[in-house]
Amino acid sequence: MGISICEQPLSIKPHLFMNSRKLSPKFDISTIHLSSIVKFSSFSSCLCRDNHKGSASQLHVLPDSDDFIWEAVPRPILDTIESPMHLKNLTPKELNQLADEIRSELCSMMSDSQKPFKASVAVVDLAVAIHHVFHCPVDKILWDVEEQTYPHKLLTGRRSFLRKYKQESTMLGSTFSVGKIFDPFEAGHGCNSISAALGMAAARDIKGKRDRVVAVISNESMMAGQVYEAMSNAGYLDSNLVVILNDSRHSLHPKMEEARKTPINAFSGSLSKLQSSKLFRNFREILKVFTKKIGRGMHEWAAKIDEYARGMMGPPGSTLFEELGLYYIGPVDGHNIEDLVCVLHEVASLDSMGPVLVHVITKEDQVVEHFQTMDMLNKNGTGASVIGSSNATGPETLTDCFVNSLIAEAEKDDNLVAVHAGMRMEPALQLFKNQFPDRFFNVGIAEQHAVTFAAGLSCGGLKPFCIIPSAFIQRAYDQVVHDVDRQKIPVRFVITSAGLVGSDGPNHCGAFDITFMACLPNIVVMAPADEVELAHMVATAAQIDDRPTCFRYPRGAVSKLDFTSFSGTPIEVGKGRLLVEGSGVALLGYGSMVQNCLRAQSLLSKLGVHVTVADARFCKPLDIKLIRELCANHSFLITVEEGSIGGFGSHIAQFISLDGQLDSVIKWRPITLPDNYIERASPMEQLSAAGLSGNHIAATVLSLLGRNREALLFMC
Amino acid sequence: MGISICEQPLSIKPHLFMNSRKLSPKFDISTIHLSSIVKFSSFSSCLCRDNHKGSASQLHVLPDSDDFIWEAVPRPILDTIESPMHLKNLTPKELNQLADEIRSELCSMMSDSQKPFKASVAVVDLAVAIHHVFHCPVDKILWDVEEQTYPHKLLTGRRSFLRKYKQESTMLGSTFSVGKIFDPFEAGHGCNSISAALGMAAARDIKGKRDRVVAVISNESMMAGQVYEAMSNAGYLDSNLVVILNDSRHSLHPKMEEARKTPINAFSGSLSKLQSSKLFRNFREILKVFTKKIGRGMHEWAAKIDEYARGMMGPPGSTLFEELGLYYIGPVDGHNIEDLVCVLHEVASLDSMGPVLVHVITKEDQVVEHFQTMDMLNKNGTGASVIGSSNATGPETLTDCFVNSLIAEAEKDDNLVAVHAGMRMEPALQLFKNQFPDRFFNVGIAEQHAVTFAAGLSCGGLKPFCIIPSAFIQRAYDQVVHDVDRQKIPVRFVITSAGLVGSDGPNHCGAFDITFMACLPNIVVMAPADEVELAHMVATAAQIDDRPTCFRYPRGAVSKLDFTSFSGTPIEVGKGRLLVEGSGVALLGYGSMVQNCLRAQSLLSKLGVHVTVADARFCKPLDIKLIRELCANHSFLITVEEGSIGGFGSHIAQFISLDGQLDSVIKWRPITLPDNYIERASPMEQLSAAGLSGNHIAATVLSLLGRNREALLFMC
Repeated sequence: MGISICEQPLSIKPHLFMNSRKLSPKFDISTIHLSSIVKFSSFSSCLCRDNHKGSASQLHVLPDSDDFIWEAVPRPILDTIESPMHLKNLTPKELNQLADEIRSELCSMMSDSQKPFKASVAVVDLAVAIHHVFHCPVDKILWDVEEQTYPHKLLTGRRSFLRKYKQESTMLGSTFSVGKIFDPFEAGHGCNSISAALGMAAARDIKGKRDRVVAVISNESMMAGQVYEAMSNAGYLDSNLVVILNDSRHSLHPKMEEARKTPINAFSGSLSKLQSSKLFRNFREILKVFTKKIGRGMHEWAAKIDEYARGMMGPPGSTLFEELGLYYIGPVDGHNIEDLVCVLHEVASLDSMGPVLVHVITKEDQVVEHFQTMDMLNKNGTGASVIGSSNATGPETLTDCFVNSLIAEAEKDDNLVAVHAGMRMEPALQLFKNQFPDRFFNVGIAEQHAVTFAAGLSCGGLKPFCIIPSAFIQRAYDQVVHDVDRQKIPVRFVITSAGLVGSDGPNHCGAFDITFMACLPNIVVMAPADEVELAHMVATAAQIDDRPTCFRYPRGAVSKLDFTSFSGTPIEVGKGRLLVEGSGVALLGYGSMVQNCLRAQSLLSKLGVHVTVADARFCKPLDIKLIRELCANHSFLITVEEGSIGGFGSHIAQFISLDGQLDSVIKWRPITLPDNYIERASPMEQLSAAGLSGNHIAATVLSLLGRNREALLFMC
Repeated sequence: MGISICEQPLSIKPHLFMNSRKLSPKFDISTIHLSSIVKFSSFSSCLCRDNHKGSASQLHVLPDSDDFIWEAVPRPILDTIESPMHLKNLTPKELNQLADEIRSELCSMMSDSQKPFKASVAVVDLAVAIHHVFHCPVDKILWDVEEQTYPHKLLTGRRSFLRKYKQESTMLGSTFSVGKIFDPFEAGHGCNSISAALGMAAARDIKGKRDRVVAVISNESMMAGQVYEAMSNAGYLDSNLVVILNDSRHSLHPKMEEARKTPINAFSGSLSKLQSSKLFRNFREILKVFTKKIGRGMHEWAAKIDEYARGMMGPPGSTLFEELGLYYIGPVDGHNIEDLVCVLHEVASLDSMGPVLVHVITKEDQVVEHFQTMDMLNKNGTGASVIGSSNATGPETLTDCFVNSLIAEAEKDDNLVAVHAGMRMEPALQLFKNQFPDRFFNVGIAEQHAVTFAAGLSCGGLKPFCIIPSAFIQRAYDQVVHDVDRQKIPVRFVITSAGLVGSDGPNHCGAFDITFMACLPNIVVMAPADEVELAHMVATAAQIDDRPTCFRYPRGAVSKLDFTSFSGTPIEVGKGRLLVEGSGVALLGYGSMVQNCLRAQSLLSKLGVHVTVADARFCKPLDIKLIRELCANHSFLITVEEGSIGGFGSHIAQFISLDGQLDSVIKWRPITLPDNYIERASPMEQLSAAGLSGNHIAATVLSLLGRNREALLFMC
């Protein structure tokens, strides 16, 4: 089965290209159908590089019905898709029907979850088109953000797996180990797909292979610096690489924000096809060679005229990619499978083209609004309805408490400002933004910038709180070290989603922040045990103005629902507190683990074991007095933290070793997160898996006291 | 003294702008003088917003001659400059003379150092122009790269300080604490100045102040993602901010590389002046308002026409900045003070303009070549002469050994590739590049991309070694965690410049890598004790193909000069080695500190104290058998590492605690880097300051044994 060439869409004449300004840009996406230009039948079955002659016979094989509960709604085409190969022979009409079925499947699958799923529904057509054109798993498809990968996963044999996940009420995961074949690289923190794809493309070139590498990035990722590093390097290496920018039109990026207004219309569709057509690109290549011969200067002028002429036609942002060295094609309507297939087919069919960027416009909101199951979804209150609801019923999460405490401090001090970075802004922060719009900066996925920007704000005389989830402050570690701690600039880091994060699994788990923050010389590192302490630490951080500070808190609900006063009192730096006085064993908790130490204490007291419980509050500087007291009066000191090795426990150990305490009677035992990534599960299940629950702590105490049989009872 | 307005350079008519293509782009920078257009006298003394009437009388006050040795060469103008305020009344001719004097001063000052200084010589004119126009320290000037800051430092009262530094033979430092007033933010890791400047600008706006913020970035920094994050955010916030791109025309960035060929000529000078002129920008603002009224679409077209029309005139890269939201002006000849002053004056004089990018072209090489002291400098062999010399006289540094070992492995295995990232490439790596040009990727200041790119290469079936200095792998920490370790992708991290780095001081110190790497679950963390071990670890890392690996080595010379075999043998993972068998005290060294343990052992044996010395080799996984043996047979276990708290020592402590070893006779003592940043000094001085020299280790042993008086002798 050879490769036949799609009919060129050159009924669009060059003069159209030159007279573009005469076209009204007001056509609506919904009114345009370009099927007359594209002869679909010519490419529907022409792309199978491998021999898939037998695939037609598999069209009606049903997947194993034991794998999942059968829905009443029939999905006749989706049911036949076991691997992407089965998409090859579908007609345009069937592809459209398949997309509808996937949307229906996704909505029924995800309706009872709190997960954002709009992103996945919006890319259904794109995923179908990609799998129709490219040959996964020979060709590599890399997605950027996990939430967009579900249609891709449905089409690559993981439908039953997705359903199982739903049944088990834990949410859809990134770690589908069965899918390593189809997902050569895992999506997660965003903005990494171009870098990884470029690596694969370079490896392919070195190995002399000829497969395609496709990276799909979302426009939200376009804020992240790594994307520019990767595009710039792609332009330099000039490897064959297809980057698909999935522009879902909500972004903090100023230029992308402007692009919101760019219409996609008949013209843009035609333009994209012209841009992607082989003839046009060949003409461009010839022009390059020709002008190169004439002389360098001329060549540059010609390249510029080409680039800017196309830039004039395209949406704002298009020349940016050209400047970075990627050939820009777009915008393409992300909900018109015919257009998508035509453009992708053209892109896939040319051998030497260098990196290409296909700009695809998808409409998350409209797609979902028009979908039949929308009513059902609304009831479950996903998305925007969460915003602002947090305060109507009092604070429910630690973030609610934090934001209210921050507002209380901001009311006292005009210099207090907040900087937020990370993949998603927690809805509660909207409260702060509403109250102090000029004092809130949300920079999106640009953590590196956020940290240095906060340092700049501090140099300018303000008091910045820099709010970044634990997993994402990793992205700004050098800035924390060099631009803040080294220069001893007072920036207050608020590390959210610290520790285990339940259904978000290991991707967003904040396991390492105590370790990598506390090793820095100048910073104050603390963690609140509960919402009252959180308010105190906000006040403490606001007050410390001669060096950087950080505190971490986990996801999750508040423990005291009657908590009303958000205005905290600064606590003395490096001062812990004794909570329960006992004997023999001292539990020294850090942050949220203080609660679990108290749980363990309560369990143990029923067995007649009375342990001491203390809240360290500070990992740096340590409460030397408290630690010495605990060492002097106990046989065992157990440090408990929801963080990796090298953090709080290690700081305690180093101190008591150098202080000579370890040489006397005290025996130190650290309880930390285990040395592995903990897969997604409910928060309680994760804590148990990590050995950090109250029961586990109690069991550790009992086994240290030689009461192993009782210890085992707690582990059940 | 009010602000008078510089005469508009509008003798350049708009038609010139429109007919630009007719101009030959072959004018040379040296032949162009635009003084006829610019009436310099009108602005030489008009910019003092503060009352500096008395400054003329200070023109001939000499600085305190006690501060530094007086040179025979007279520098009549420079000698009068004690603060930037003294530049205000200088005529263009005097400014040029001042620039010459600074160049002469810098060259005489730095001739006997190995530091790259060309960068500073190249920006002399720019620094003079900036300080003539802006009002430092009221206006904030932020430099990006430390090497470019010396002219700025000379002009801001730190001339004697610079000279003192030279006399003390340690090299020029970033930490001029006296200069905190003039340097609101420290240069160091590059690429942070726009973020910090934007923070200061935002703080200024909130506080209702009106000072200027100027960020100077080098084109090498343009490879770093943070710069794009910052520019994009600057475009969004639209704060008044001046970004000066100092384009010294050597870069890895493909587009900047192309810009190398862009001529700066009469036309570009005039164009920049036109772009920066108030009238033109006002016209542009009016056009914006006008078209906004007509309608959104029209406004966009007008903005595009303006942007692309200017893009057509400007060099490649110019629209990139416009796309990100910065108003582009340039290119400006960075060695024509008249032009620079005129453009900067225009930029500084308008109140509401948003972020502006001034593209300044400087020529490092030419500037230096034409300078009188060039001969002298050549003798000292700075710069390129180092490249390739390393192998002529055998391996001299650990990097030489590493590169030769890597070449030996690459000869055995075609899949081995190398990725390098960081501010500067170590010259020895050129050897690898020469031998395997297709298997070497130098991505420059793009560490985030480098790590994920290496992960992609690994997914593509290659064996990547990712070579990044310790201080810069901090910038890619999230990528190490998420894209490599979490996915257990075999990438081999080679962490160079680990530990203390002598004259590069705390900015480039690699103190934290053991801590932040060893806490990751899947990675193998190791460190070679010497060059033989280094070769073995290259072989070991090449062999480990089921998980990531890292090893670190410090800067510095090899210990065994007769070392010839670069081809190492893989060592067993998690296997340390016993070097000297003694009793009582065991020294367990990690990496380069094994050498210092051996030094201590040698010193102690003279006093009759025979300690055991072991080389841990691995921080993860630990050699459990070796550690148990050491614990069983000794009273003291001292762990020694050139890294911060939370690293090797903490891993040992956690293991021996959980293993119950700490409960028996063994007493553990950690020797790590102290909990502060160690200022620049010679490597030996730094090791002493850190308490990590052989003497210090020996003293620690003696004091543990109660022989405090002898211990004190070692500390002298």
